[in-house]
Amino acid sequence: MRTLSAPAASQSQPLVDGDMLAAIDLGSNSYHMVVARYTLGQLRVVDRLRETVRMAEGLDGRGGLLPDVRQRALACLSRFGQRIRDIPPHRVRAVATNTVRRLHAPQAFLMPAETALGHAIEVVSGREEARLVYLGVAHAQPPRPGHRRLVIDIGGGSTECIIGRGFETLERESMQLGAVATTLRFFGNGRLSRKRWRDALIEASVEFQQFAATYRSLGWQEAIGASGTNKAIGEICAAMKLTKGAVTAEALPFVRDELLRAGHIDDIRLPGLSDERRPIIAGGLLVLEAAFTSLELQRMVVSKAALREGVLYDMVGRAGDQDPREASVDALVQRYGIDRAQALRVESSALALFDQVAAAWQLTPDDRMMLSWAARLHELGLTIAHSQYQLHGAYVLAHSDIAGFSRQEQQFLAALVRAHRRKVPRNVFEALPDRLLPAARRLSGLLRLAVLLHRGHDDPAIPGLGIRASDDTLLLSLPARWLDERPLLQADLAGEPAETAALGVRLQLDP
Amino acid sequence: MRTLSAPAASQSQPLVDGDMLAAIDLGSNSYHMVVARYTLGQLRVVDRLRETVRMAEGLDGRGGLLPDVRQRALACLSRFGQRIRDIPPHRVRAVATNTVRRLHAPQAFLMPAETALGHAIEVVSGREEARLVYLGVAHAQPPRPGHRRLVIDIGGGSTECIIGRGFETLERESMQLGAVATTLRFFGNGRLSRKRWRDALIEASVEFQQFAATYRSLGWQEAIGASGTNKAIGEICAAMKLTKGAVTAEALPFVRDELLRAGHIDDIRLPGLSDERRPIIAGGLLVLEAAFTSLELQRMVVSKAALREGVLYDMVGRAGDQDPREASVDALVQRYGIDRAQALRVESSALALFDQVAAAWQLTPDDRMMLSWAARLHELGLTIAHSQYQLHGAYVLAHSDIAGFSRQEQQFLAALVRAHRRKVPRNVFEALPDRLLPAARRLSGLLRLAVLLHRGHDDPAIPGLGIRASDDTLLLSLPARWLDERPLLQADLAGEPAETAALGVRLQLDP
Repeated sequence: MRTLSAPAASQSQPLVDGDMLAAIDLGSNSYHMVVARYTLGQLRVVDRLRETVRMAEGLDGRGGLLPDVRQRALACLSRFGQRIRDIPPHRVRAVATNTVRRLHAPQAFLMPAETALGHAIEVVSGREEARLVYLGVAHAQPPRPGHRRLVIDIGGGSTECIIGRGFETLERESMQLGAVATTLRFFGNGRLSRKRWRDALIEASVEFQQFAATYRSLGWQEAIGASGTNKAIGEICAAMKLTKGAVTAEALPFVRDELLRAGHIDDIRLPGLSDERRPIIAGGLLVLEAAFTSLELQRMVVSKAALREGVLYDMVGRAGDQDPREASVDALVQRYGIDRAQALRVESSALALFDQVAAAWQLTPDDRMMLSWAARLHELGLTIAHSQYQLHGAYVLAHSDIAGFSRQEQQFLAALVRAHRRKVPRNVFEALPDRLLPAARRLSGLLRLAVLLHRGHDDPAIPGLGIRASDDTLLLSLPARWLDERPLLQADLAGEPAETAALGVRLQLDP
Repeated sequence: MRTLSAPAASQSQPLVDGDMLAAIDLGSNSYHMVVARYTLGQLRVVDRLRETVRMAEGLDGRGGLLPDVRQRALACLSRFGQRIRDIPPHRVRAVATNTVRRLHAPQAFLMPAETALGHAIEVVSGREEARLVYLGVAHAQPPRPGHRRLVIDIGGGSTECIIGRGFETLERESMQLGAVATTLRFFGNGRLSRKRWRDALIEASVEFQQFAATYRSLGWQEAIGASGTNKAIGEICAAMKLTKGAVTAEALPFVRDELLRAGHIDDIRLPGLSDERRPIIAGGLLVLEAAFTSLELQRMVVSKAALREGVLYDMVGRAGDQDPREASVDALVQRYGIDRAQALRVESSALALFDQVAAAWQLTPDDRMMLSWAARLHELGLTIAHSQYQLHGAYVLAHSDIAGFSRQEQQFLAALVRAHRRKVPRNVFEALPDRLLPAARRLSGLLRLAVLLHRGHDDPAIPGLGIRASDDTLLLSLPARWLDERPLLQADLAGEPAETAALGVRLQLDP
């Protein structure tokens, strides 16, 4: 098994021909893995794995996961892990979606899951999932500049609905409506009837209703369905000779009537439907019918690409100059009217400190990016209120939909911002996985110092800013004469070792 | 004693000649009251009261208030209450500042305080206090268009520092640095020495340092000091023949040296200093010296106007078309990119419902404004994230510095936004004073209905929207045919009575 220690190389390191990448999707119905080779600026898929784990069935209603489902999940991940043993860790990304989002204590599952896979697993929010799905689908379509696409991905636990153009999304929605979850909710006892279908359709449509008007007024030239449910229904339409593989508004009622005729889920016999898909096709079809009526769809084609391909292309973006996280941080700086000059001063000193201690503290290029973003965003909360602004900034960063970031990354950023001034709260890193703790503590100490050095909001670059690290000790040196002229800074610095002690960092001032 | 029941008249009702207004300021050092008559568009002060309560001395370090200080405060308020017995409640505004902000359980003091005064007491945030101080000072100065003013108000518990132009503020800061609090913190044992002064000056300057560069780069043409400390120091400067009443950078060191010569607070003998001011002049002078050095001030004149006058002029604004709360709500709609069309639809239906039940439910014009603002802001949290957006909106509204609103008003708005969809949390109105609870519950029920009716985000005005209220029952009627075409709305409405029950409102659908 691979160790989970921080990779020496970074995701932002440019890809070269022949590099292998892998993306793993821990979905609510099935787990997917796709392995690709990077050649001539393109990705070529060299392997795909899929296992039906049906993780959403394992939710026990109190946010726990049933033991046998948990076992199924871990066994699948260790098989996946074997396959990618030789791919460098910074070229592997595993993402978990709705079912893991709904766990009461996701870490209790994620820790053994990461061990089984041999890689970190990121939890992504519903809207980030929507962005990644769109990215995967868009890369599988012929480029049509200016053309707007509607993409609907009906997963096991949630459904994502996106309008995009090119590789960018314009609207992203994620609903708690998946094929597994919806089947359990509306047809839990297996019985199917027209009346029950009608009632369920209303409830499912209510979810679409919230954004349907906005979507319709924006409009699209093409509708595309992604993932297993849509693929299965497209195949049924073809097998019933209703279409050549697309799903249409005319075809859907025939499929639904044929399904309802069974009277019970176990008796569903639809042409082209696999045994494996049968237990959850009712919920999936219900969601698709709700989408067709709410969005007034006429025709939807089916794409083979989905979340996993999106994760692959997002990795390519991060390795090039298309890291979506950069754009998201910029957008936050803009929206919250952050003082860019101050953010830049703090960022530049924070990185100057980082570069002097990175080797001794085993900090990675990815840690450097995190520090840089936290520095740019540390004053975000000032827009809400001056007093306790570090809390408000952390709140926004922890709860916002920020494109490109996983939940853990957002929590990491939020914790750095939370702890950047005043007392370091005892439980500030509580939400982070253990593997991130050492870096979080150390980056936090560096960010605090950088903020403190620029507290006057007008200092230019700090001359001769020197720092050395060994184990948990930081030795900071500043030119004595420069410091002599700054009694306020001296007072601040004198109080800082007591605060950084809470981070497990012993700060010493030289001399 | 006047009852605290909701006033039938509103603050927004236009003033007419001869109307009397009163403003009360529950400061950390003294309580002030000013009574004025409105004539020919102007305010003429007809009475002023001031009592040294020294409330900041009563803080026990755990957020409690010492019993004798509490008693002093209540006795003062009932004397004030007597004086304004004949002024209509909607023309009286009482505001509490830093010391009440720092109480662990402000309601435990505010409830008897409101009873003693016979009027509601609003707690204002530090930055709202800054806005009101500026408003008061600006109205007392000759108008100088384009001219920027720096206003410094050193209170008992906090210091406000504002740059403004005309009647508008450009920058507002509030620091935990008041004359009473600072004297206790740095000279608690009464001893005065140069060394101690130097250390204290550094600590006080650190607070100014955070914004001094921004302020200096914006600049001002005139510096004005407000409130007792500044007034007292101006008088000392004049009595020492250093200036004619202004405070200057040359004069301050002489005053400070003279003060330090005493060696102990009890022995301070400064020309022009009253016995009452003596115990807190050291802290006040320290803050002023920190302001002068940090902001590089040369000269500051002293204004007699302060917070209380600001509150009076704010009342005049609310009664005219200058309610600053309107501008603040607009600014929030803008900053958070709220969908204005949807906000307008919900506001218009919410007010249509309100107007039909206001009489039966004894709702006031001020309640109507609150409902209207909550409707305009209910989708604010969508900018942060889609899921649970009612929580994010409530967070921002509860924690933001929103000009013109008291804390209680912000908490009221936040609670309405928090409860506008999904389950009504059991403790959603916990932070509100009891006197606001009946209105809060009822407005919440109305807002929920309006949001629900427009959930599709595209409905035009609802035809024949009828509602009747009696006691705690609401009877809603909608045209049967219109409703028949909207099965989703029917489903939503069917679930709503269970939710509004938590608000103490029995919702019935007719038929």
